[in-house]
Amino acid sequence: TNQRILISVRSLASAQDIFQHKSKFPTRHIGPRKTDVVSMLDLLGFKTLDELTDKVVPIKIKFDRDLNIEKPLNEHDLINRIRAVAHTNEIWRSYIGMGYHNCHVPHPILRNIFENPGWTTQYTPYQPEIAQGRLESLLNYQTLVTEMTGLDVANASLLDEGTAAAEAMSLCFRHNKRRKIYLSNNLHPQTLSVVETRLSALDIEVVIGDIADVDLASREYSGILLQYPDTHGNVVDFESIADEAKKNGTLTCVATDLLALTLLRPPAEFGADIAVGTSQRLGVPLGYGGPHAGFFACKQSFVRLIPGRMVGVTRDQDGHEAYRLALQTREQHIRRDKATSNICTAQALLANMSAMFAIYHGPEGLKEIAKDIHNGAIVLSHGLKRAGHQQLNDVFFDTIHVVPNGLTIDDIKERAQNKKINLRYLSDGSITIALDETVKPGDIEDLLWVFKADSLSDILNDPSALDQNISNSKFMRTSPYLTHPIFHKHHSESRMVRYMKQLENKDISLVHSMIPLGSCTMKLNSTTEMIPCSFRHFTDIHPFAPVDQAKGYHQMFTELSNDLCEITGYDKISLQPNSGAQGEYAGLRAIRGYHEANGHHHRTVCLIPVSAHGTNPASAQMAGMRVEPIKVRASDGTIDLVHLKEKVEEFSNELSCLMLTYPSTNGIFEDHVADVCDLIHKHGGQVYLDGANMNAQVGLCRPGDYGSDVSHLNLHKTFCIPHGGGGPGCGPIGVKKHLAPFLPSHPVVDIFHELEDNQSFGTISAAPYGSSMILPISWAYIKLMGGRGLRRATQVAILNANYMSKKLEPYFKTLYVDPSSQLVAHEFILDIREFKKTANIEAVDIAKRLMDYGFHAPTMSWPVQGTLMIEPTESEDKEELDRFCEALVTIRQEIRDIEEGKMDIKINPLKMSPHTQFQVVNSEWNRPYSREQAAFPAPFVRPDSKVWPTVARIDDAYGDKHLVCTCPPILPDLYT
Amino acid sequence: TNQRILISVRSLASAQDIFQHKSKFPTRHIGPRKTDVVSMLDLLGFKTLDELTDKVVPIKIKFDRDLNIEKPLNEHDLINRIRAVAHTNEIWRSYIGMGYHNCHVPHPILRNIFENPGWTTQYTPYQPEIAQGRLESLLNYQTLVTEMTGLDVANASLLDEGTAAAEAMSLCFRHNKRRKIYLSNNLHPQTLSVVETRLSALDIEVVIGDIADVDLASREYSGILLQYPDTHGNVVDFESIADEAKKNGTLTCVATDLLALTLLRPPAEFGADIAVGTSQRLGVPLGYGGPHAGFFACKQSFVRLIPGRMVGVTRDQDGHEAYRLALQTREQHIRRDKATSNICTAQALLANMSAMFAIYHGPEGLKEIAKDIHNGAIVLSHGLKRAGHQQLNDVFFDTIHVVPNGLTIDDIKERAQNKKINLRYLSDGSITIALDETVKPGDIEDLLWVFKADSLSDILNDPSALDQNISNSKFMRTSPYLTHPIFHKHHSESRMVRYMKQLENKDISLVHSMIPLGSCTMKLNSTTEMIPCSFRHFTDIHPFAPVDQAKGYHQMFTELSNDLCEITGYDKISLQPNSGAQGEYAGLRAIRGYHEANGHHHRTVCLIPVSAHGTNPASAQMAGMRVEPIKVRASDGTIDLVHLKEKVEEFSNELSCLMLTYPSTNGIFEDHVADVCDLIHKHGGQVYLDGANMNAQVGLCRPGDYGSDVSHLNLHKTFCIPHGGGGPGCGPIGVKKHLAPFLPSHPVVDIFHELEDNQSFGTISAAPYGSSMILPISWAYIKLMGGRGLRRATQVAILNANYMSKKLEPYFKTLYVDPSSQLVAHEFILDIREFKKTANIEAVDIAKRLMDYGFHAPTMSWPVQGTLMIEPTESEDKEELDRFCEALVTIRQEIRDIEEGKMDIKINPLKMSPHTQFQVVNSEWNRPYSREQAAFPAPFVRPDSKVWPTVARIDDAYGDKHLVCTCPPILPDLYT
Ligand SMILES: Cc1ncc(COP(=O)(O)O)c(C=O)c1O
Ligand SMILES: Cc1ncc(COP(=O)(O)O)c(C=O)c1O
Ligand SMILES: O=C([O-])O
Repeated sequence: TNQRILISVRSLASAQDIFQHKSKFPTRHIGPRKTDVVSMLDLLGFKTLDELTDKVVPIKIKFDRDLNIEKPLNEHDLINRIRAVAHTNEIWRSYIGMGYHNCHVPHPILRNIFENPGWTTQYTPYQPEIAQGRLESLLNYQTLVTEMTGLDVANASLLDEGTAAAEAMSLCFRHNKRRKIYLSNNLHPQTLSVVETRLSALDIEVVIGDIADVDLASREYSGILLQYPDTHGNVVDFESIADEAKKNGTLTCVATDLLALTLLRPPAEFGADIAVGTSQRLGVPLGYGGPHAGFFACKQSFVRLIPGRMVGVTRDQDGHEAYRLALQTREQHIRRDKATSNICTAQALLANMSAMFAIYHGPEGLKEIAKDIHNGAIVLSHGLKRAGHQQLNDVFFDTIHVVPNGLTIDDIKERAQNKKINLRYLSDGSITIALDETVKPGDIEDLLWVFKADSLSDILNDPSALDQNISNSKFMRTSPYLTHPIFHKHHSESRMVRYMKQLENKDISLVHSMIPLGSCTMKLNSTTEMIPCSFRHFTDIHPFAPVDQAKGYHQMFTELSNDLCEITGYDKISLQPNSGAQGEYAGLRAIRGYHEANGHHHRTVCLIPVSAHGTNPASAQMAGMRVEPIKVRASDGTIDLVHLKEKVEEFSNELSCLMLTYPSTNGIFEDHVADVCDLIHKHGGQVYLDGANMNAQVGLCRPGDYGSDVSHLNLHKTFCIPHGGGGPGCGPIGVKKHLAPFLPSHPVVDIFHELEDNQSFGTISAAPYGSSMILPISWAYIKLMGGRGLRRATQVAILNANYMSKKLEPYFKTLYVDPSSQLVAHEFILDIREFKKTANIEAVDIAKRLMDYGFHAPTMSWPVQGTLMIEPTESEDKEELDRFCEALVTIRQEIRDIEEGKMDIKINPLKMSPHTQFQVVNSEWNRPYSREQAAFPAPFVRPDSKVWPTVARIDDAYGDKHLVCTCPPILPDLYT
Repeated sequence: TNQRILISVRSLASAQDIFQHKSKFPTRHIGPRKTDVVSMLDLLGFKTLDELTDKVVPIKIKFDRDLNIEKPLNEHDLINRIRAVAHTNEIWRSYIGMGYHNCHVPHPILRNIFENPGWTTQYTPYQPEIAQGRLESLLNYQTLVTEMTGLDVANASLLDEGTAAAEAMSLCFRHNKRRKIYLSNNLHPQTLSVVETRLSALDIEVVIGDIADVDLASREYSGILLQYPDTHGNVVDFESIADEAKKNGTLTCVATDLLALTLLRPPAEFGADIAVGTSQRLGVPLGYGGPHAGFFACKQSFVRLIPGRMVGVTRDQDGHEAYRLALQTREQHIRRDKATSNICTAQALLANMSAMFAIYHGPEGLKEIAKDIHNGAIVLSHGLKRAGHQQLNDVFFDTIHVVPNGLTIDDIKERAQNKKINLRYLSDGSITIALDETVKPGDIEDLLWVFKADSLSDILNDPSALDQNISNSKFMRTSPYLTHPIFHKHHSESRMVRYMKQLENKDISLVHSMIPLGSCTMKLNSTTEMIPCSFRHFTDIHPFAPVDQAKGYHQMFTELSNDLCEITGYDKISLQPNSGAQGEYAGLRAIRGYHEANGHHHRTVCLIPVSAHGTNPASAQMAGMRVEPIKVRASDGTIDLVHLKEKVEEFSNELSCLMLTYPSTNGIFEDHVADVCDLIHKHGGQVYLDGANMNAQVGLCRPGDYGSDVSHLNLHKTFCIPHGGGGPGCGPIGVKKHLAPFLPSHPVVDIFHELEDNQSFGTISAAPYGSSMILPISWAYIKLMGGRGLRRATQVAILNANYMSKKLEPYFKTLYVDPSSQLVAHEFILDIREFKKTANIEAVDIAKRLMDYGFHAPTMSWPVQGTLMIEPTESEDKEELDRFCEALVTIRQEIRDIEEGKMDIKINPLKMSPHTQFQVVNSEWNRPYSREQAAFPAPFVRPDSKVWPTVARIDDAYGDKHLVCTCPPILPDLYT
């Protein structure tokens, strides 16, 4: 028999059955072993995962077939496959510029940050006591941005230059409420598009033109936006315009280039109020357009209007300096539709890389790089002029603007192609050439050849005419920059590596323990998924390179989009949005476009349950919608259907859409979701389903099937892109067919060619495909798991949540469970509000105390104030879940001790947490509990593996309120 | 003027001057900034580095020109260059076997260990309190080896299978002193060569033949060495031979395959006393032959005879379990020429990777992999037999042995080449095919095609003949293995990554702080140097692939060898030795070969100063030489010339060579080195110069110039290969022309073809070019630094040592300085022996106390007992040197407190060090100093960056003596 013959009992039906090499990846990705799953199911009273999830997911919406996704690949085959795909991209020399420049990523930063899970798998630093490393690094980034621009304050990154510019113009409006802005026609086209798109929804008039023509005296303009150097490389003197603007109450915003500012007078010195841009060229690969960090700086007086996150210096309980996110009250999770912006996930990892780039090179090194580039441009300009071409830029940094003479554009194109060089060919027949850090003499030689100019040595032998340059212009920078010691002491590689390691080791990331942040889905980001992001054939492609040089990217996009359509039930995907919030915004704009195309301009009311994430109302507001909150039932956390119906009827004619999170942020698969969708559709509305909770659905149900029209997918949650300490993210949207014509487009790259009926509302991101370089992660995840693997992941995510909820039942109340099954979805809310009364203990105390156990807190006080929301994900195994439960159970006992008067109500392990080495390794110890209880409160917290908080509890009073809220508090009175 | 025109003041002479892009790497590699160098020189009373080193290096031996080495490359150009070189290697499918099998390196292990400086830059765990992570991992490795082989004890790796086999046979001899061994003729040819080479020097007769022919009853044989499965893949029953051997007092040694042993009855069960092999196929790339870990296991009764390092479990001062290197008294640094072996640097990093591979897969996973391979071999065997070929192996695991029928060897070769497949073609016209973990059905299909056999599906449709296999043989393994929980709990990637991170974070490596180990040269191992080691075109090449598939490797070898010749002044390099000790052995054998070729068989006396590293006498002994120690002058640490002359004259006719370390291990450039070399030559001897201290010489003087005939170069010291926690290393030797014919050769790959006059003594390593895969590191270092950069590195290494010595002068005595200049070389010895008397403080107390300051101890008690030897290297910057000095100065004050009676003589911060969290975060604290003083003894030791020892001082009494000696104690009476 076969069994006798072959060691393994396998059918001989096919060769594949003998050498299985089957993907074991699902067993690597999913935490609990098979036997654990059995015992965990047993605790819950189930025999199989199907039995469990059949009870959890409403039968009406159940997806009843296998996902039609390719057979899973094993990890090594996957790498071979994606390598082959990547190699169909062609690496040309791209001197296209337009905000994207090739650069040398310092290898120590590449390997020790970008490729290091200790950095990539951190969450946004909402819990500062275990996040001092990345907070310090982001503060370095802010310092870099302020020093280079000369402005007072900067944030810890935005999504890209385009959105940073849009945010700047919104700030102008928030500041002076004028409904008109002026954009220079010498901005990058994608910046123009993104700003126009954004402001067009806000009833703000956008005028584009020559900046010399702006009529500031009319005092109508809220702000003006200029570019320095401009999109053609020209360095223009804006001082008088800025003066004029100031006199007339108009803010001056400048899009600029941090590297150029090592040589050029900074914007603040000629009167800019705000400066924006991208820090990509400071040590971040092109990556076909992203991810990169957008930066934003402004005068101190606008600090409360700044969008996004900002790190601030404060003190901890012991008076030690500490960093934290400052002024969070500006942000969407607090202010919702009144927020300064909808931005949530930003570009922390990339901002950190750029900050480290500046630290590694220091001011001298950066200037050296800039000089080399500038010198190259001077020589090139001279060479082309000698050859009879016209060079339009008087003063320039890295980019020259050429009107060819004696050569047709086609000639030049052909000659450039011959050398595998990409230039920017403008519609007026001129050409720009933007040099970068990687350019060498041979490259200049080739460029000269393309333009039939003399050779480099000929040109250099005649230096007399090399007279154009910044140094003998009024633009030359004289003010110092990067004078802080941090930019001066880590210049040897040993020091640099130690600095990065020291910061890394201050922070809890997934390499230490589970990070059970509800709604954030901190699952495994596997090495195999990450490896392709470093492939040269992905990193070294300019986003505006001809599409036929990016075949590999496009194949990957297509395969990923197809898989995401299959997973969600949607018909079409746009990959452009580079965060969840951007996806929301894009989806809402598509809905608006759809209504408008149908003549329903008045449909602008957006219904949003109060339990929704803060980005939802913020995005709706930005999309020009009116937000109407829908109540949630305090009893079970579900939408108050009565209230919903009332509102739907009240606004029937104005109804644009309902924004729904499913399963709800309260951790429940609401039974009536399909009915709710029906109701909305009946009233002419559309359904936006926030896809943040796709991790509870993949393979079990599909939004596109049960009535949703559009969703964003946080690829940085369900689809394994690591959170990077606050980004990058990816928020592609999926839409049903009727919305497809309304997806984002792009002014430079025709991404809409596939669609018959392009009625795009505009542009969401600077790059046509958003954060392309990290899309291989999600692509790989799907290919590694296969349809069944993905479904099993979802089932185990649900199992893990229910297992924990059940284990904690004797100690903590799970706030919401499904009324009939008594089960939760993939996350659950622990109600700890009673302890405020019984022991004066609040969510924050438990969150901080968990740090003493080596854990990151769950999501705090969202969606319900005073609670903790736990999402274990499928990647955590039973042992880790048990450890986390043990921590909570021990904490419950600590609370009980307070309740029972055995422990002081003020000085107790919870109120005093987290405990630092400074505190417990201190001769003074006057607390009613021991040092051991402080620092080693459970058997699994061991001296040899303890991860210490490096500062004590951040002093709330010292800074501003709501310090460590991961998510927005809901006004309790909106609960019925 | 130019200055007006170009921002940077540069000559326009050449394009290169404008776009400098010059290599900044020397400033990354070298720690002190230019201004620091000036102030450090100032302290020493010098104006320039040249001034300093002109004083340090004897004028007579000064190298008076620039090194003739290519202009330095910048880091990005370097990667492009080496990538291009690598791509001239061709990746074929190699089914050659012979101890090298392709495998899948799990990506999490690749990235988190092999590519992680936290693991690669650790030193050998001689200081166990800050090395518990790698000690645990090495213990896992030992457990893996013992469980798979069924034997009782294993060591923590040897250099490769060949040397492990040689060590086994030496053990047999040490055990029973019989001067004859028997080697099966079915061993891998390189194993035969290495064993023959090694034993031929020891007057042990080596008989090679069919194992059936061995005459054990003669009781002449010390040991027999068998292979299981054998080199042709055959699984032979050795039980009766082992029985017979046992009866006759002969030891049975088995070379085996850990993966095969998941299916095959382990060697211990059929009577093996010793098992050896390589663990390469467990998760380590082929890398053209290395580095990989050799393993060694034996019965408990031989434990004191085991070569190399072994991790043992012991306890710390508080009674907590802890790991440490056990039984160090066997080792060369203690026993010198009486040691069990000369091995020092082993293959810790690779052993750790294999251990992690086993942990990642667990026993079930390993068995699954083995089954797949075995099944493939069964099917292939069946297919070839059906096609009329003869298959000679009755029982096999992964390798079949084919005598083709109807096809000539040339036919088959051509067809195989057509498919880019390498097979092993034996001289008798037969062929072996060894399958591996990466083989897929398509590969089998191609192999069938090569032999014109039926297709896979045809074969699988006729399973009746698939009857050959292990499972229905008496060889089937029935005993369990890897039952320890460690092999069962880290199977999800999250767990695996956390486990690796947890271990990493227990250990001090170069990512934390300087590791000033004298003689070990723990300099920067830069990222750029490391990156190429992961290139597929380096990792995926079989060492016995045809040479024309390894053009890239050979180009790199040639360039590296040329550069090393230029640097050392030698004429020829052999890259084969894969550690310093192996290099010594190879060099001594070359010397012996040279003498013998001249008819001087009697020249076997090797003079070695007592200050020499333990590997020197151990290697000399293994090379069949008689060691005569030469005294060292207590006054200045130099060789006692009078004693040397006496000995030279005494042994003039028997003189083989002098082994000299230069600058001496005492940190002095002895002025008379050239005279000493002359003296030896005059008496017909050769000079072996131990190149461990090349870091004081590169660019300043060359051994080949001042009289040395041969040296090894520890590439893992001066040439930047990271130490990997105890290996890999690389110990190439350089020789003057007259020794070139006597360099190592190889039985499989003709590496000697370049030489006219091959008189090789034999084979040193299993692989023809040793640890080829890590040679790009040293290649890159040289290319990045250029001649002047290398010289400057040497100068700064000398500066750093002198700076520290000077700064410490008021507090500690530097034992030896140059009598005339009062300077040291690149390292210096602190004499702390007086404190034993004044405060009962010994070197070990200071070493352990330094851990509390976050530092790794200097080399302890070597070359002079009771001292500390500090080698800062050029990579440490002034701030780090100052910190280390501050730590030592503070420690001096702590000693003074004891001296002055202010601190208890028994319970004080030094004696009680290192301090653990367990101790200082403890309610009990009854010490006469504070917790703060214990754990945070200096301002720079801060709670937010402190690296804690995870165990307290290892209990010496509990284990064996000389626990933490880095280097061998010298008998004081040999000092004059
Ligand atoms: C429910 C929900 N919606 C939207 C978002 C916003 O996504 P992003 O942070 O990618 O902008 C989040 C992010 O945490 C979320 O949890
Ligand atoms: C002076 C000296 N010689 C030889 C060696 C042996 O080198 P390896 O450890 O590579 O075998 C060492 C190693 O530390 C050494 O310091
Ligand atoms: O490893 C050493 O013995 O130096």
